[in-house]
Amino acid sequence: MNIVIATDSFKGSASTFEVADSIEKGIKNLEPFASINKFPISDGGEGTVDALVAASNGKFIEKEVTNPLGEKVSGRLGLLENNIAVIAMAEASGLTLIKEDEKNPFKTTTYGTGELIKAALDLGVDEILIGIGGSATNDGGAGMAQALGVSLKDGNGDPIGFGAEALENLEVVDMTNIDNRIKGTKVTVFSDVVNPLCGLNGASYIYGPQKGASEEDVKWLDQLLYKYGGTLEKQLNMPVMNEKGSGAAGGLGAGLLAFCNAEIHSGVNKILEKTKLEDHIQNADVVITGEGKMDSQSVYGKAPIGVAKIAQKYNVPVIAIVGSEGSDIREVYKHGIDLVIDIINKPMDLKKAMENACELIEYAGEKAIRSFELKDKLLKWREPYEFI
Amino acid sequence: MNIVIATDSFKGSASTFEVADSIEKGIKNLEPFASINKFPISDGGEGTVDALVAASNGKFIEKEVTNPLGEKVSGRLGLLENNIAVIAMAEASGLTLIKEDEKNPFKTTTYGTGELIKAALDLGVDEILIGIGGSATNDGGAGMAQALGVSLKDGNGDPIGFGAEALENLEVVDMTNIDNRIKGTKVTVFSDVVNPLCGLNGASYIYGPQKGASEEDVKWLDQLLYKYGGTLEKQLNMPVMNEKGSGAAGGLGAGLLAFCNAEIHSGVNKILEKTKLEDHIQNADVVITGEGKMDSQSVYGKAPIGVAKIAQKYNVPVIAIVGSEGSDIREVYKHGIDLVIDIINKPMDLKKAMENACELIEYAGEKAIRSFELKDKLLKWREPYEFI
Repeated sequence: MNIVIATDSFKGSASTFEVADSIEKGIKNLEPFASINKFPISDGGEGTVDALVAASNGKFIEKEVTNPLGEKVSGRLGLLENNIAVIAMAEASGLTLIKEDEKNPFKTTTYGTGELIKAALDLGVDEILIGIGGSATNDGGAGMAQALGVSLKDGNGDPIGFGAEALENLEVVDMTNIDNRIKGTKVTVFSDVVNPLCGLNGASYIYGPQKGASEEDVKWLDQLLYKYGGTLEKQLNMPVMNEKGSGAAGGLGAGLLAFCNAEIHSGVNKILEKTKLEDHIQNADVVITGEGKMDSQSVYGKAPIGVAKIAQKYNVPVIAIVGSEGSDIREVYKHGIDLVIDIINKPMDLKKAMENACELIEYAGEKAIRSFELKDKLLKWREPYEFI
Repeated sequence: MNIVIATDSFKGSASTFEVADSIEKGIKNLEPFASINKFPISDGGEGTVDALVAASNGKFIEKEVTNPLGEKVSGRLGLLENNIAVIAMAEASGLTLIKEDEKNPFKTTTYGTGELIKAALDLGVDEILIGIGGSATNDGGAGMAQALGVSLKDGNGDPIGFGAEALENLEVVDMTNIDNRIKGTKVTVFSDVVNPLCGLNGASYIYGPQKGASEEDVKWLDQLLYKYGGTLEKQLNMPVMNEKGSGAAGGLGAGLLAFCNAEIHSGVNKILEKTKLEDHIQNADVVITGEGKMDSQSVYGKAPIGVAKIAQKYNVPVIAIVGSEGSDIREVYKHGIDLVIDIINKPMDLKKAMENACELIEYAGEKAIRSFELKDKLLKWREPYEFI
């Protein structure tokens, strides 16, 4: 039996590796000789560096960077085969780096993400892959630009400072001192969202609240990004505000388009391509994917659906192991998922489920194999079987 | 596709019929043309009459009987094919007929069960089937005997009264006025327990607490049944105290042996035999069974395992749909269950699960079919398939 495990993390309770290892353990409880290939996957968020380093036998490099609130933290980037670097904005500018009561979309900056990009340039790579899920910021990538040497100035020619609130005074975008190496380096962005920079579907309205913005804050944040985007378009003479994904990661998408000449791709698709998952799925008997919570939103660019779509091409059955099923879960069955197995196996609260995630995932892995083998009983005894 | 649904009730949230109908609905959402045969099953408790009436096109008969505390309630018996009646002690003397704060194993009586037996005799049947799960009583079937005309007297020749507490004064078992029709009628008892009347494994120690007995109460109840059983053995000159199942239903098993010359059978096996479930399972592609909570205890005579054992004989895969899985659930996989699907699909408490039971069971029914059909994708495309 040939099994591919390609699962995202269960955010807050188990990393993509822990999830995959637990599923593998469950499978081996029943089928110790199964051939199992594990692929950590990600939709551009926290697990991006892990997934790609694991997939291409890359290595991690630690770098001191600035967190969203200006403190120094240790961030990682990955150096992959073919002289490619991978970074994840969440490693320097992510929501998980600050405390719940420190959330402040007016003050948080993507400066650290710019430092990670510089670190990648220092490695002399030909291409930088950037996952931009999980941001704590709403600065349109202004901080990232500043770290790369771009000077953002007010009407008096003074630096505007950091965070979305500083954008109010932005008048001049001075590219004189930008790190020139960025121009010779391909920048590929993985994003699981396609929102534009501004408006009701823009970065502030859709993702502002989860970063700590009130209803009033959102309106003001949207105006700040509108001023910023308009200034970029006029002074750099390029469209950025309504490009697909410009509103991703608090507008970091727009910044990457403007300053790094980036290409924005669907996070999961591009990552799956890089991990060569498709080659393995072709020869698999069953694919097991997963994520923390699966619901109808999962069909919009989330990692497991990306996996399921590949498996569908080769008629390989797909089982999703998930922490929790949304009430509109049936939608995913229209997108290549054949069976969802949730890890909750008795009445319990979220806390208990998260604390026991690995054990519950292991048992769900067992159930996946039990499900897959259900028909074997019939097949072994009643040949020729009507289904053939 | 030929599917057998043979499920117990989810006690407190869905009857055996509601469970089966919800599973059927889930199946039909995906496979509208599946051929589905539903069999209500039971291990001798509340659902016994329903299960057998449904299985043999029988009819229900209502009868006013005495509840465990002496009040009048409406109980049902079933009249089946071949001049057989079925009764369930739970219909007259069950725990569900009294409130939580009314539980009192010293006072509760099986008198109503005796009245149901008399009602069956009034029908002129050749055989009476009696399910004895779910009792509120600990009177050794003394009340049942009294309803049938047996006179239980103290040292002065006066009636001892009702309930286990009355047994303290029992000196004489006077059979003069017993309803003689019972002697010409076969009495078959379905019990899911095999405990003896007395001792640490007896009726009082094992089942007393769930009927409201404290630790101290249990010791005294055990002594009362010891006095009762000893008196029966001596005066009727037959063994009853250590027969298999004599301790079932607060010792009603012993009473049925002594006064009705009953045969005690494993509840589920005998019921499955009567429902001719086996004939249908032979031709099924998959069997779906279920119960409210499944755990390692389920392997001791519970209905779903009885179903699974039949299916195992014919290599038909068995899926159990359950309300909740015990932490020692893996034990059931050694007894013919191939896959357990619980209805809990996100963190939730017991109350929410019980309130939404039917909806959750329906989705679990869908998952059962999704599991069963997982391999079809491969089978349709990769013939000849290695499993054949």
